[in-house]
Amino acid sequence: MADNNSLNALIEALRRLPGVGVKSASRMAFHMLQHDREGAQLLAQALQQAATRIRHCNMCHTFTEGEVCGTCLDASRDRTKLCVVETPADQAAVERTGAFKGLYFVLMGKLSPLDGIGPKDIGVSKLFSRATQGEVQEVILATNFTAEGEATAHVLGEALKQRGLKVTRLARGVPAGSELEYVDLGTIAHALVDRREK
Amino acid sequence: MADNNSLNALIEALRRLPGVGVKSASRMAFHMLQHDREGAQLLAQALQQAATRIRHCNMCHTFTEGEVCGTCLDASRDRTKLCVVETPADQAAVERTGAFKGLYFVLMGKLSPLDGIGPKDIGVSKLFSRATQGEVQEVILATNFTAEGEATAHVLGEALKQRGLKVTRLARGVPAGSELEYVDLGTIAHALVDRREK
Ligand SMILES: [Zn+2]
Ligand SMILES: [Zn+2]
Repeated sequence: MADNNSLNALIEALRRLPGVGVKSASRMAFHMLQHDREGAQLLAQALQQAATRIRHCNMCHTFTEGEVCGTCLDASRDRTKLCVVETPADQAAVERTGAFKGLYFVLMGKLSPLDGIGPKDIGVSKLFSRATQGEVQEVILATNFTAEGEATAHVLGEALKQRGLKVTRLARGVPAGSELEYVDLGTIAHALVDRREK
Repeated sequence: MADNNSLNALIEALRRLPGVGVKSASRMAFHMLQHDREGAQLLAQALQQAATRIRHCNMCHTFTEGEVCGTCLDASRDRTKLCVVETPADQAAVERTGAFKGLYFVLMGKLSPLDGIGPKDIGVSKLFSRATQGEVQEVILATNFTAEGEATAHVLGEALKQRGLKVTRLARGVPAGSELEYVDLGTIAHALVDRREK
């Protein structure tokens, strides 16, 4: 495939996707070119569009196409409670329980000193200014119950309490070591009801 | 993420890649948007370019950007021998041995009646016209040694012999560097049948 610059470029570009090595990148390129060129064009457009249009919500930091996301704009939600999650997928998991009617803050990551991910790399300062704007009375820490998620909750909790906020953590109904995205709804719902002061 | 049409479209498009479910598609989209927008743009361009530029070689049916690929144009190769493989990756494997100096034909698939893949879905008729153009004296069947690859070799072999061509198949045998104790019985049995004078 030495004279195939477009093909080699495609394989290289696919390898930038997480979890995709050179073997799967080749298999993906082969499949798209041999069986699904329409899918290739569609994916190209979707990437282009998402990369240009998607930004962060001014209030909760999650992905959105507007200035402020639909959840933050929803007037029916309880603006005194702010639930802090690591990712949009975690937020979606909490939403699906139907047990929380407040607003969210999405860190878009977690503290991970070993990987060099500190407070500046995730939305920590944005969280502090959001939480201290006046409306919020309680911050519910719903980072994952992994070592890094717990450490993130600890650091955020201390800093938020110093700023005079009531801080709670999801109850330990959630099995230790698991990620919210994969936990059943009932467990998350119970953990919300049983949340305790931190 | 209800108000996120670009994000949902991206996740849907990523799911068309082979082996990518909704969870990995979400993880890929999140990674690209949060950490590698440059990679997203690059992948979009690479897909676009590959889908428009890459066609099949007029002689060997593999992916190429020209009318005829570089291998087929290489005047130093032995044009009397044609090696039939399933995919460009298989062709690359044979090339790496340095043991073959003839030309190739790439089926871009294998016969698989259970999946509804018949002779028309892979490059069979193109192979027949290529093999009978006059120069080719021997066709070496190098499809994989799986059930489907063997069936493909059988069907192609019979048809090519009827057209008066010499047809050979890669030898089956004990892999180089392996100990008999750990080789499966079928392989040893085949190696016995195909044994040659030393
Ligand atoms: Zn928002
Ligand atoms: Zn060719």
